[in-house]
Amino acid sequence: MANKKDKPTNTISRIKQIRKKQISSEALVDGIFKGDKTILAKAITLLESTKAEHFEKANAVVEKCLSKPNSSIRIGITGVPGVGKSTFIEVLGKTLTALDKKVAVLAVDPSSSLSKGSILGDKTRMEMLAKDPKAFIRPSPSRESLGGVAQKTRESIILCEAAGYDVILVETVGVGQSEIMVHSMVDFFLLLKLSGAGDELQGIKRGIMEMADAIAINKADGKNLERAELAKVEFSRALHLYPPKENGWVPKVMSCSAIENTGIVEIWDMIQECISQNRDNGYFEGNRKKQSKNWFLQTVDEHLKQYFHKQKFFKTIQDEMLKAIAENKISPFYAAKTLLERVTKELK
Amino acid sequence: MANKKDKPTNTISRIKQIRKKQISSEALVDGIFKGDKTILAKAITLLESTKAEHFEKANAVVEKCLSKPNSSIRIGITGVPGVGKSTFIEVLGKTLTALDKKVAVLAVDPSSSLSKGSILGDKTRMEMLAKDPKAFIRPSPSRESLGGVAQKTRESIILCEAAGYDVILVETVGVGQSEIMVHSMVDFFLLLKLSGAGDELQGIKRGIMEMADAIAINKADGKNLERAELAKVEFSRALHLYPPKENGWVPKVMSCSAIENTGIVEIWDMIQECISQNRDNGYFEGNRKKQSKNWFLQTVDEHLKQYFHKQKFFKTIQDEMLKAIAENKISPFYAAKTLLERVTKELK
Repeated sequence: MANKKDKPTNTISRIKQIRKKQISSEALVDGIFKGDKTILAKAITLLESTKAEHFEKANAVVEKCLSKPNSSIRIGITGVPGVGKSTFIEVLGKTLTALDKKVAVLAVDPSSSLSKGSILGDKTRMEMLAKDPKAFIRPSPSRESLGGVAQKTRESIILCEAAGYDVILVETVGVGQSEIMVHSMVDFFLLLKLSGAGDELQGIKRGIMEMADAIAINKADGKNLERAELAKVEFSRALHLYPPKENGWVPKVMSCSAIENTGIVEIWDMIQECISQNRDNGYFEGNRKKQSKNWFLQTVDEHLKQYFHKQKFFKTIQDEMLKAIAENKISPFYAAKTLLERVTKELK
Repeated sequence: MANKKDKPTNTISRIKQIRKKQISSEALVDGIFKGDKTILAKAITLLESTKAEHFEKANAVVEKCLSKPNSSIRIGITGVPGVGKSTFIEVLGKTLTALDKKVAVLAVDPSSSLSKGSILGDKTRMEMLAKDPKAFIRPSPSRESLGGVAQKTRESIILCEAAGYDVILVETVGVGQSEIMVHSMVDFFLLLKLSGAGDELQGIKRGIMEMADAIAINKADGKNLERAELAKVEFSRALHLYPPKENGWVPKVMSCSAIENTGIVEIWDMIQECISQNRDNGYFEGNRKKQSKNWFLQTVDEHLKQYFHKQKFFKTIQDEMLKAIAENKISPFYAAKTLLERVTKELK
């Protein structure tokens, strides 16, 4: 009994010690490579820090982690609130750890900075998985912009992969731009849906259906079974309206019940089939390269904009131009040219 | 007989004279305000010129034209090749001139610089309308980028409005980004469709259905009539999948036959209904202001990018970064930061 009591106390004090201590980037990388969850969490916290002195260190860690080869699979999972995402992820996660896979769960939730983590903020939502030694769960970073959240999540994926996680599940809420962000950092994009009463297609956000590699109709159990089968037909038909995917993959529609644990293994098999097909035809590697390139180019554009917007008089001149445009005094194109000319004059 | 022969010769020599002569911006504005088609065409040519000395003059003309009040309606018309756009526009145009409206037809065709005008390039396609004194037809500007084409078209709209044209029809091809451009410069967006054999929804480009204020199923004549009615039902159902429009307008699906001139007046009535509703609830004015503002902000961003990309070493450093990213040596975010730091150092 005494032993059992001692152990958690020791662990807690060890965690507290690690949290307090300033660890070098080398020690962080070492801990991550060894698969130490506490160190991994600490490194991610460092990534998420807004302090300038943490920035260089975090980048050193990311670069070391980037260079470590791995064969992970990144899966994005989205769906509107109420679709049963947490239960689905927990059951899928447990299925994977039972197959001896290490699973990391990350989240992209732009609302988390306001609500202090509406998804994954509460680990008790995935209690079983959180206790699993083969699983690592991390809530959404609380930063002001979606771009910031996405950047940190993308870098966290790199760290988790270096820590030996085989499958990275990135959860997001089905309410807007966050899907596009998540889609641009994963190898497979899964959309969770419910078989509703009546119009099955209600509430589809523009573009999200097209991004999905598969749609899983959750809560296909009990009285819902028949409706779920109907929804499958409806969604399959809807998916056919979109042009074929670049990689030749035909999006699948499946049904499952996370609560009854039915259909989950089948979904995992289907994901593996897609990944294996993409690896064989070179799409997998090419897509990852393209994603990295796009993140770079987008970030450059974002930085350029910020750089200019911070210049002296930028806002004053911009407001002046906007006023003239609203009063039909100047064409938007000439106004843009004037703004740039006046701001770059300041730069010289 | 002699008189009849003399007249066109006189007109032609007058046009030739005007073409050759360098006209001041005041004279151009004067001609436009008087509704002189030759002067209007000349001013648009000036707008489209890439010569630096034409730029200031063109802008002076645009600014004068912007300040002239008008109550024009701008209608975007799109549809894939073969849908019968030219015939539709010609018949709609003739319907409008018969109602004593002055009609201008412009085009946004990004392919025109290659194909030398695949749409509207050949005025004989709309022979009847081209001869109509109340109509003005202008092919797509031949510039290298879609952005350039769109900018010139948008400024041409301003000139046509100042010349007294009541309805501006902007034609585009249903093959990509050009729809988004046209949508962002018009008050009403009409999508032309055909009732195909079989799957009516095939070939819908992502996002275009959502942008439409109405879908007109053309060639609803003869043996096609029944299929067109079926297509109407299918499209109405598809439109219901999208979230309601900001302005409360419920997109309509109508059928017509440009060749038999059926359904065209009904479409015009429906457009007027939408415009009138939008004018009443303030959406019309608000949307135009928003469009101008967006054109300005987009153009600013575009100019900023160009400004940076022209800086010394930009391309060299960017290529260096892209290589490091492809080799997993650097995170895309850190690479972006490095690029900006090195380039702005050059600026100082």
